[in-house]
Amino acid sequence: MADRFDLIVLGAGSGGLSVAQRAAKLGARVAMFDPDALGGTCTNRGCVPKKAMWFAAQMADMHRLAADFGFETTPMRLDWARFRKLRDQYITGIRHRYKERLEAAGIHVVMEAARLISVDTVETTSGARFSAPHIVVATGARPHRQDLPGFELGMVSDDIFTLEVAPRHIMVVGGGYVAVEFACVLRALGCEVDLLIRENMLGNFDAELVAALMERMQAHGIRIVRRSQVIAAEGKPGAITLKTDDGADYGVYDALLWAIGRVPNSEHIGLEALGVARDEEGHILVDAFQNTSVSGVYAVGDVTDRWALTPVAVAAGRSLADRLIGGDANARFDDTAVPSVVFSEPPLGMVGLTEQHARARYGDDIAVHTGRYTPLMFMVAGRSQQSVVKIICVGTNHKVVGIHVLGPGSDELLQGFAVAMQKGLYWRDLKASIAIHPTAAEELLLLH
Amino acid sequence: MADRFDLIVLGAGSGGLSVAQRAAKLGARVAMFDPDALGGTCTNRGCVPKKAMWFAAQMADMHRLAADFGFETTPMRLDWARFRKLRDQYITGIRHRYKERLEAAGIHVVMEAARLISVDTVETTSGARFSAPHIVVATGARPHRQDLPGFELGMVSDDIFTLEVAPRHIMVVGGGYVAVEFACVLRALGCEVDLLIRENMLGNFDAELVAALMERMQAHGIRIVRRSQVIAAEGKPGAITLKTDDGADYGVYDALLWAIGRVPNSEHIGLEALGVARDEEGHILVDAFQNTSVSGVYAVGDVTDRWALTPVAVAAGRSLADRLIGGDANARFDDTAVPSVVFSEPPLGMVGLTEQHARARYGDDIAVHTGRYTPLMFMVAGRSQQSVVKIICVGTNHKVVGIHVLGPGSDELLQGFAVAMQKGLYWRDLKASIAIHPTAAEELLLLH
Repeated sequence: MADRFDLIVLGAGSGGLSVAQRAAKLGARVAMFDPDALGGTCTNRGCVPKKAMWFAAQMADMHRLAADFGFETTPMRLDWARFRKLRDQYITGIRHRYKERLEAAGIHVVMEAARLISVDTVETTSGARFSAPHIVVATGARPHRQDLPGFELGMVSDDIFTLEVAPRHIMVVGGGYVAVEFACVLRALGCEVDLLIRENMLGNFDAELVAALMERMQAHGIRIVRRSQVIAAEGKPGAITLKTDDGADYGVYDALLWAIGRVPNSEHIGLEALGVARDEEGHILVDAFQNTSVSGVYAVGDVTDRWALTPVAVAAGRSLADRLIGGDANARFDDTAVPSVVFSEPPLGMVGLTEQHARARYGDDIAVHTGRYTPLMFMVAGRSQQSVVKIICVGTNHKVVGIHVLGPGSDELLQGFAVAMQKGLYWRDLKASIAIHPTAAEELLLLH
Repeated sequence: MADRFDLIVLGAGSGGLSVAQRAAKLGARVAMFDPDALGGTCTNRGCVPKKAMWFAAQMADMHRLAADFGFETTPMRLDWARFRKLRDQYITGIRHRYKERLEAAGIHVVMEAARLISVDTVETTSGARFSAPHIVVATGARPHRQDLPGFELGMVSDDIFTLEVAPRHIMVVGGGYVAVEFACVLRALGCEVDLLIRENMLGNFDAELVAALMERMQAHGIRIVRRSQVIAAEGKPGAITLKTDDGADYGVYDALLWAIGRVPNSEHIGLEALGVARDEEGHILVDAFQNTSVSGVYAVGDVTDRWALTPVAVAAGRSLADRLIGGDANARFDDTAVPSVVFSEPPLGMVGLTEQHARARYGDDIAVHTGRYTPLMFMVAGRSQQSVVKIICVGTNHKVVGIHVLGPGSDELLQGFAVAMQKGLYWRDLKASIAIHPTAAEELLLLH
């Protein structure tokens, strides 16, 4: 006999926690299963430790800028072991608070893997069975591991967080946000960094701003190799070389990071037997209501074919609970203005369409407003590096369909504009608004 | 005979430059008069050098935080003379670009004071006369100097920017944004700082966030003396003591800063003879269209009784030019959502109504949502200092009428929310928006 619940969640990451908490709050009896730590990727191996590393990188960059600002300084060095300990303490604290909140909410948490054995029943590794009319798959994703000679000589992003000493010279393979963020952070922290990109860097972002970021990264000392694909890693731990398809050799590196994409955790949880539809890469296909192809089975977060962003998983989870438990049949989250920030150096943010996408969709009916400026703090330091802001409007009423920002402050300034875009933002609204001077944010109001 | 123009502007600060440039762009022949530097207070003695000092303070604070973040560091010290030189070079560059742009626009610039001798004619100090059907007064404001024994022992804000060595122990007198910003910046740069406030600190901001800021300032080592009024400064330069009305003595200080308000530059420019109405403090009274009480005479910026903020002066100047020269009879700027940031440590921002004002206007028909959280970078460093966010809604449809933020990132995150508020923002809009994680900005979406 299976223990009966109102809702079962596989996965205790951002999406799983969100749907479980909201469902419990709405009165549901909820069971949640995860073989790993509470908090999933974001808390343990993603956003949170990454942002902590980004702050360390910011400190190192600010410190170098301070020398150009009139400060008398000596070089500073990060004690990686101590920093790791501080970061881990913080993350342990977060997990502890999750645990407390789950207990307070009366959610039944089982720290074991579970798989669906029917549309309403899951079985844990140790053989216990639980059933519910609603089963939510929120098992997330993991770094992609390629079947390549010498792959094991390299790390994936999960491993970076366990380092206790800085790499001296690292090769980062990949062109997505994980590759870019680590390349920038490690460079700021004093590592020699090579970045090997097969095709485009940050292909989902606006090409003009990506090009500007790439220039900044190169000026920062990151050596970028493009249009090259690794065919093998050779050597031994601490002395690694790479061979690429164009016959070139790279290295010797003391560290190698594979950041070549992420794959959904959709195997070994019983989806095949139930016929839950997935795409070629294994992402569970969901509709706007997080329904899978099988009634009673739902999915949220990185395991799905939607945006792989924590706040999207959270919004999806909440809406789903509102619908399944709260009785709000139309509950779904609105993805018309999903903002996204790459914590590069400098940070890059976007909401809405890129110029390329807007042009593909609307042709010549778009107006593109781009501005470049050197931030005050760089001007004072005698540096010329520029920030870039871009707004894309459509139609005779100049509706804003895309906002793109690159430069210090982009990480914090974008959110409010995304809220405004969600409501429907027009060029005239920006022109009618009063600036905050002097800030990076006001540059979006000062565009011509 | 007077030289004839379409529009005359007294003052080459933010407001004056704005109206002159826009009018010239619209085809007007414009003459502009200023006895001082192009750029006015903002560029030369306000926003710009202040923000540069704030960045220096940020660097110093970040450097101290870095030590708690796992960095091995040694103390760093600002070379004030070098920093001043860098800042001055930057500002000289801005003035140079203003000059170029004014020349390119064909604006006739006279670096002399001028006063109105009739509603359509001004006369410069050297006796030249110029006339125009429209005369815009944009003469700005200056630090208030009190008639008090020993006042001359202290500086005003203008003087701070000329310092070439750091004060060791300074008394800042005042409770407005100038006093608070300098107190915080000087403290971060290593000065001992006392702050003496007659009544409330930052009386226009939300009392709850101001109280939290005051706590932070005290924790940062600023000694705040409240409800005390200076009756005399005594001693000599470099060794100053203060006497207050409650019989107390303060000091000895090596520096004293009077930041006791600003007064409009509305005297000696012929306003009295023309009967241009002013308030008790001398601010020129203007309507929503920047009209003064005298036809043909207009005013923008800090000399008026409106918001003393650069972007407001700029918006007012542009609208006025659009109306007088561009023929848009209804042109005026919309001040329903004027955001304002105090560059304190941490920064404090607001747009719309404070809780006090909302309660006074709407009574119990308001809902106040307040959140406190410790930012990630402080958590990692083992610090507990909290940021505060507050949203005030009104009515059954929960319209957002006030947003208040205190903490790192407040300077950049507010702008977009102000744009959204300008359009009409509702609580449901915030709940329907997707967060950017992890940021300070998202906290406004996560409030309960």
